[in-house]
Amino acid sequence: MAPPFLKTPEEYNKLVDSVDVFLLDCDGVVYFGPKVVEGVKEVLDMFRKAGKKVLFVTNNATKSRRTLKENLNKLGLGASEEECFGSAYASAIYLSEVLKFPKDKKVYVNGEEGLEEELDACGIKHCGGSDPEDRDFKPPINWDAFKPDDDVEAVLCGFDSYINYQKLGKAMTYLRNPKCKLILTNTDPTFPTHGELFPGSGSLSLPIVNASKREPLVIGKPNKSMMDAILTHHKVDPSKALMVGDNLATDIEFGLNSNIRTLLVMGGVTKHEQVYGENPSKVVPDMVINSLGDLAVLARQ
Amino acid sequence: MAPPFLKTPEEYNKLVDSVDVFLLDCDGVVYFGPKVVEGVKEVLDMFRKAGKKVLFVTNNATKSRRTLKENLNKLGLGASEEECFGSAYASAIYLSEVLKFPKDKKVYVNGEEGLEEELDACGIKHCGGSDPEDRDFKPPINWDAFKPDDDVEAVLCGFDSYINYQKLGKAMTYLRNPKCKLILTNTDPTFPTHGELFPGSGSLSLPIVNASKREPLVIGKPNKSMMDAILTHHKVDPSKALMVGDNLATDIEFGLNSNIRTLLVMGGVTKHEQVYGENPSKVVPDMVINSLGDLAVLARQ
Repeated sequence: MAPPFLKTPEEYNKLVDSVDVFLLDCDGVVYFGPKVVEGVKEVLDMFRKAGKKVLFVTNNATKSRRTLKENLNKLGLGASEEECFGSAYASAIYLSEVLKFPKDKKVYVNGEEGLEEELDACGIKHCGGSDPEDRDFKPPINWDAFKPDDDVEAVLCGFDSYINYQKLGKAMTYLRNPKCKLILTNTDPTFPTHGELFPGSGSLSLPIVNASKREPLVIGKPNKSMMDAILTHHKVDPSKALMVGDNLATDIEFGLNSNIRTLLVMGGVTKHEQVYGENPSKVVPDMVINSLGDLAVLARQ
Repeated sequence: MAPPFLKTPEEYNKLVDSVDVFLLDCDGVVYFGPKVVEGVKEVLDMFRKAGKKVLFVTNNATKSRRTLKENLNKLGLGASEEECFGSAYASAIYLSEVLKFPKDKKVYVNGEEGLEEELDACGIKHCGGSDPEDRDFKPPINWDAFKPDDDVEAVLCGFDSYINYQKLGKAMTYLRNPKCKLILTNTDPTFPTHGELFPGSGSLSLPIVNASKREPLVIGKPNKSMMDAILTHHKVDPSKALMVGDNLATDIEFGLNSNIRTLLVMGGVTKHEQVYGENPSKVVPDMVINSLGDLAVLARQ
């Protein structure tokens, strides 16, 4: 059945009243690239004043909470670090608090500084990542010189613009140990930059996934692992939470997998016919709204 | 039905008599790493003296025919360039002779010098590849400085130990043009080196395949494209050809896809139970032999 399309202040009010925690996707909901969505600043302030929790839930794996906050605040959104929940932090929390990854073991990182920053924050030891030995690699690889670190018990792959064959090869080496876990921050196929789509974390992880024939643990949306990380860290009553997003495959599917309500915003990556057309997507949100900014009408009453 | 396991000189003789062209996989059939399989030198000489054509058919995408020949001859196998058929050459032949790729257009290469050498040999213009501008990349990418070459009408991905984000991003940029083809030299998930398996061409191509959402044209075994390239270049009567290999998924499947007979050699990657066990593979060779070298008995008669 097609979901209700909310349009009136009464419908908005009823929804907001029923929610304590707003989980917000960022790009396409809060902003489009450098431009904040009209009304969203007012809406966020209204939520905060009403004592509601706001969490910016993004699959971005290169940014720590600190950097996510800085980026949101460059747009004037008044975000705190506590409100930011990217897949880098979610991965670190998941390792530390859900998997209880041993504090004396290490994670081999195919990723950037933001991911390392969050591992540090959660007390997870790591190697690889931004280490110049891996970043400044030039073929051919001198495998005789590579001494695998016996403490490595997980490979964590996120977005890494420094991807190279040595990093992939080292990850493969660690994954020959069946005890070594393979964890992906997310499986986003693309990453928007410079107004176009380029390969995203999920695509960059595929050489390792395919060559190692491992079934990876994936943290980011739409996986429940992301929600497990959120629940571990924030006191959230799932029945009072709402996931707001523009993407059926990540945001709305995430809500469905995590058993929380979902609100799809239009104007982003989802087309009207994917929800209301003759052959709609099987991923159906609980509700649809034109824009998160439309709720600003409640602040003006 | 389980295929016959050839064991007697009579069976060997009957087989060899029925074949004019032996298509030989290399690693696992002719040699294991640095060691030639016992008897194979005699067998190759016997084939050549009997006027039979020998073709070394390999998915290796970094080596030109010249380098493949040199490597075989370091092992004392007396190979000629004409006998070598790697997926680099097959890709160049396929572009040039099967696809009739325009001589004034260009291929953007994610690959190494061997692939470029074969494109040159077939008169196919190319860019990317070993160009220092792509190889010596350090993040971040300056997309403003990148001026896509309007002549590029194909992206060709092979094994590239210089894989980096700029190369992947440039490939993505070209593939936004629906007229630009995506071609993979092969889809081998792994590449054996230093006694272990590391990510192969197929795994390294996945970021581009996944991010671009393109269905690529794949040249190497087990694809019929490889046979089309062979048939275009060598006068081969498929009914008198035999594919000899140790890998069900590449070599034997290649024979089945190309409608030529297949001989599986044991001692390589295929286990006895995959052919003769209770739940055998669905990929069934026409015949099985312990080793290609066993045919040497015919030369000693």
